[in-house]
Amino acid sequence: MREEDDMLEAFKTRRLEIEAYLEELFTIKKAEFGKINKLGEDVCDRLRRFATEGKMIRGLLVSLGYALFNGDEEGQSVRRSLIETGAAMELFQSALLIHDDIMDRDQKRRGLESIYHQYSRLPELKDSEDAYHFGESLGICAGDVSFFLGFEILSKLDVRSDIYRSILSLASKEIGYVGVAQMQDVINGANRLPVSEDEILKLYMYKTGRYTFSLPLMVGGLLADVSQETVETLGRLGESLGIIFQLKDDELGIYGKPDVIGKPPGSDIREGKKTLFYGYLRKLASAEQNQQMDGIFGNRDIGAEEITFVQKLAEKLGVRELVDSKIGEHADKTRALIEALQGSVGKYRDSLEHVLEYSLARAS
Amino acid sequence: MREEDDMLEAFKTRRLEIEAYLEELFTIKKAEFGKINKLGEDVCDRLRRFATEGKMIRGLLVSLGYALFNGDEEGQSVRRSLIETGAAMELFQSALLIHDDIMDRDQKRRGLESIYHQYSRLPELKDSEDAYHFGESLGICAGDVSFFLGFEILSKLDVRSDIYRSILSLASKEIGYVGVAQMQDVINGANRLPVSEDEILKLYMYKTGRYTFSLPLMVGGLLADVSQETVETLGRLGESLGIIFQLKDDELGIYGKPDVIGKPPGSDIREGKKTLFYGYLRKLASAEQNQQMDGIFGNRDIGAEEITFVQKLAEKLGVRELVDSKIGEHADKTRALIEALQGSVGKYRDSLEHVLEYSLARAS
Repeated sequence: MREEDDMLEAFKTRRLEIEAYLEELFTIKKAEFGKINKLGEDVCDRLRRFATEGKMIRGLLVSLGYALFNGDEEGQSVRRSLIETGAAMELFQSALLIHDDIMDRDQKRRGLESIYHQYSRLPELKDSEDAYHFGESLGICAGDVSFFLGFEILSKLDVRSDIYRSILSLASKEIGYVGVAQMQDVINGANRLPVSEDEILKLYMYKTGRYTFSLPLMVGGLLADVSQETVETLGRLGESLGIIFQLKDDELGIYGKPDVIGKPPGSDIREGKKTLFYGYLRKLASAEQNQQMDGIFGNRDIGAEEITFVQKLAEKLGVRELVDSKIGEHADKTRALIEALQGSVGKYRDSLEHVLEYSLARAS
Repeated sequence: MREEDDMLEAFKTRRLEIEAYLEELFTIKKAEFGKINKLGEDVCDRLRRFATEGKMIRGLLVSLGYALFNGDEEGQSVRRSLIETGAAMELFQSALLIHDDIMDRDQKRRGLESIYHQYSRLPELKDSEDAYHFGESLGICAGDVSFFLGFEILSKLDVRSDIYRSILSLASKEIGYVGVAQMQDVINGANRLPVSEDEILKLYMYKTGRYTFSLPLMVGGLLADVSQETVETLGRLGESLGIIFQLKDDELGIYGKPDVIGKPPGSDIREGKKTLFYGYLRKLASAEQNQQMDGIFGNRDIGAEEITFVQKLAEKLGVRELVDSKIGEHADKTRALIEALQGSVGKYRDSLEHVLEYSLARAS
């Protein structure tokens, strides 16, 4: 998933506060882990840099989820909790990305070298024939450390006991789901078996939607002490937003301008990603067209010609419209859910609308 | 670390209760994850089998930590909490082992195929040239899922609010430490740089001791509502026990009878593990002896002759006695800490003594 810079511009200050909190946290943890070994100090530097380099969508959505119901009224104590839960969301995200990059063998992330790749190039490993594997191993550990730091933050939240329980329980449940969805993603990348629309949308929902949008919005709602019903509405709203975000991502993976999206053109075609776009295309293509595509999807040696072939075929078969209409369907659903948020603050409903419009319009 | 069968025989019933709880949990989770995809159902079957196959030292030590202060007095509610926290400890352990086996490329664990190895042989991957890597990826996900299930259990504990907070906070902190120690273990396996005694003992403390012995005992103490001072004593006691356990493990890795320990003779020599035994041996050996050992440690092609050479050299240089005296030192420390446990129940202090004696005497 590509991330945006100013989707949540109303929360620019919050972003700085979360960054400052993470800086402070890693300073403390560096001293603590340093008592164990030097790698413990080192992992704090890497994680701090990695975690503060992202766009913090998840971290900021917690504050939006709260502001929807309480507006700008933030007591000192709530402010602290919003920053802390936001930081925890970002550490979970960092952990997932660190593990994800190992699975996808991605050497770049957030403009930096991915964490396992950084480790594989440690001076201590320069004489090892197996440096890549050791890099992966250290990456697995670094991801685990980031998960537990996220939980440690949540475990120290100074909030009412029932809210505390709800947040801990929700976070562990939802991040567990990401692991399960991620497994499907791995298998999808490993074979050519067909995947149904239902399977693809569930994957989007659990791998991206619930965890990127639903979880932080729900945590914000919990901190605002809204009803269980409203928390669930925020969850469904997040699912729809997540599906839109992912479908737009798919579109950019096929049609996006390389200089804008920062990836080579047709990267999803080369990688043979089983997107909804791919699912529709395969379903609507003739036997002959499918045979042609067998040699294109998942083939890293294809050039501009093959990519243009896929792009044009998709237009001709109406695949792009189909995906766009699916996006439109979820946009309508999202708008209705935003409307239905009882007792919410107009200004922040607008922020949520802005997140939706931004997702719909984004070109990168 | 090798695990023992009857080190905690006083808690045989508790073991069955934890097993039953895990069966129940995975039945519920299977239905829940099944809504996401088939791999979600499948991972529940694998994790259930894996988690119930261990010896449950960690799960049972929670109950010992409690019984030390409250004897056999277990209300229905506390009983439930002891089972749940025990199960959570075991899921954390499963997660760590699953990730560990990927790092060590171990194909066997607990008499079963290791989880990533199971995955690499999925029918869906049989046509993939990259099945090993996909197996590792699915193993990373399965480990993550197990971590979050452990946290989800803890997040639902029905205990007093301050105890709840302490348990969540302690568990996330201590398991984070394991990740940091594990990184050192990876680096130690990757190069021939010397490691100091202090570094080795810290690794033992954080990779095994605190998390295998201290954490569960402390959680048990917290559930028994003992003073912070007593919780800390339990922590130190666990550290010493853990170091003894690991040092005995090292001894078995060099001198253990293959048919008893279930590993080939001198396996730690072949793997070039940087144990305290190794550290002392390298330090005390002459330049010539060290040169000879350069060709032996970490060489998987060595035979009985080289292993006998190392065993005899270690005896001659007094390495075994040095390790034994280190074990003795920590045994004395452990006994003193057991004695110092204020207000504890004699019968269960005896159980703790038994864990110590068992660790000291074990041959496998």
